[in-house]
Amino acid sequence: MRFAIVGTGALGGFYGGLLARIGQEVHFLMRSDAAFVRQHGLRVDSKLGDFHLPSVHVHESVDMMPECDCVIIALKSTQNSQLANLLPPLLRQGGVALVLQNGLHVEQSTREVLGTGVVAGGCCFLCSNKVGPGHIRHLDYGKILMGPYRGMLDDEPGPSIASLERICDIFRQTGIECNVTDDLSLARWRKLMWNIPFNGLSVMLNSSTDSIMRHPHSRALAKSIIEEVRSTAVACGHVIELEFVQYMMDHTDEMVPYDSSMRLDFLAGRPIEVEVIYGNAIRAAERKEVDAPLMRAMYRQLHFLADNR
Amino acid sequence: MRFAIVGTGALGGFYGGLLARIGQEVHFLMRSDAAFVRQHGLRVDSKLGDFHLPSVHVHESVDMMPECDCVIIALKSTQNSQLANLLPPLLRQGGVALVLQNGLHVEQSTREVLGTGVVAGGCCFLCSNKVGPGHIRHLDYGKILMGPYRGMLDDEPGPSIASLERICDIFRQTGIECNVTDDLSLARWRKLMWNIPFNGLSVMLNSSTDSIMRHPHSRALAKSIIEEVRSTAVACGHVIELEFVQYMMDHTDEMVPYDSSMRLDFLAGRPIEVEVIYGNAIRAAERKEVDAPLMRAMYRQLHFLADNR
Repeated sequence: MRFAIVGTGALGGFYGGLLARIGQEVHFLMRSDAAFVRQHGLRVDSKLGDFHLPSVHVHESVDMMPECDCVIIALKSTQNSQLANLLPPLLRQGGVALVLQNGLHVEQSTREVLGTGVVAGGCCFLCSNKVGPGHIRHLDYGKILMGPYRGMLDDEPGPSIASLERICDIFRQTGIECNVTDDLSLARWRKLMWNIPFNGLSVMLNSSTDSIMRHPHSRALAKSIIEEVRSTAVACGHVIELEFVQYMMDHTDEMVPYDSSMRLDFLAGRPIEVEVIYGNAIRAAERKEVDAPLMRAMYRQLHFLADNR
Repeated sequence: MRFAIVGTGALGGFYGGLLARIGQEVHFLMRSDAAFVRQHGLRVDSKLGDFHLPSVHVHESVDMMPECDCVIIALKSTQNSQLANLLPPLLRQGGVALVLQNGLHVEQSTREVLGTGVVAGGCCFLCSNKVGPGHIRHLDYGKILMGPYRGMLDDEPGPSIASLERICDIFRQTGIECNVTDDLSLARWRKLMWNIPFNGLSVMLNSSTDSIMRHPHSRALAKSIIEEVRSTAVACGHVIELEFVQYMMDHTDEMVPYDSSMRLDFLAGRPIEVEVIYGNAIRAAERKEVDAPLMRAMYRQLHFLADNR
């Protein structure tokens, strides 16, 4: 199977590197790091074992990239307007576009470019950062849960489960946990139960996860946000057990101190993913006439903060 | 009538200065500025006219202060634990303690020290800052609405309306608008409809009021908080017309760009008044089994920010 990685950052560099390490043919689209990686290769420091790939397929443009069986979209969603120019030549007939971005309906941009039946989404449970050109530091986790994307109203055909199982098998061979789900929307909402509280609070409170969990007031605030995301998801028709709230708290307690990608983006002056994480969740809730006051307040506060750095 | 000003900051210095200017006997309790003011007097730059009082009654301790007919409590509420040592010798039999602090039930500390029947509260609509030792800059407004404080459950006797009318008359002679209300709780809730959104947002968004009102997202957030404060007050049994929400927005649009006292305290590393403004309002709502998610989120966020400067 031939893979394309569109966006070689903390996430694309990590998963693409793992796939290349086990001998898959992986084509990396990158911008600023291209010359460096062509010369020095790709380096991944990981708790799965550090590795260095001296020679990888580096592309600065899609024009010279071959058609691939699996095109992995790993750009920040704030760059999704570029997808119309990047994706069309890349996907081989019968292939799958796998969107490994954060957020609800974040696959919609890819779906609009490539049409129905070929887009899958994946929730990545990954702590990794890009620490230098062609240099990824994997801090923890790495699990992927992927499923067919069926459109804004969950009524379109997605790629077959069998086609995702084939991709999943290859990911498993790299040493990470990977699973396929038939209910991507549920998986996305469950993931939002972490991203909505902790991405936003890390910016609003200018703090990493361990500080947020340590102070009684921010800890209680995080929990109340998790509860609101769950009750919103439930009101939108998804089944999420009440115990998952406490699981998310426990899980975050056990995490290594972590600066969310939103916080790193914020501090670096880059756009932050407010729309796909908060905006799309609020709009999904509105379609079901569900109110989500904390999510809405965070959405507004984050937009203000992003515009007034 | 003899007045004591306990806490000669932006507010106490302004009102005390106005009273002294018209010839009232005013005794100022101050700490760091005492020696300076004793030597150089008190200066107020005001849109009511700048003035300088070369000689004022300055006290660094209550021990040498005479008993007064009206003791004005103008300390920050974060210093209310000092009141037990400051107030008892100051109030003349038959006098009134007038609490000009922000917040709901902020009079309770004074009430606990002085007992029932003598404590009044006043809502001040004032933009002023202390810009140097003994130097107050009055930016705008100044109106006071005062009323008897009747305890946490509104079931205790307060001072008579007539005694407050006498104080009110003297305030009017200084040129500011002053009124007496029989329903202090209502006045406090109406004031909270400004303090809760704008004090907190000025810290959480690190911005003055004009920036908050200018950005569409912070503007919408401010309005949704005002709406929540109103609906909480209504659920607690107070009558506040719906139009007052828009009035508060319009009023803030028309204000001079203003850094709330909470923002100035925050930036200067001083304690901020989270408990009396947010905590007491949330607890009042809880007693009526009313939920106030935005107020609660702000309460928690502000405590975290104050503890992690």
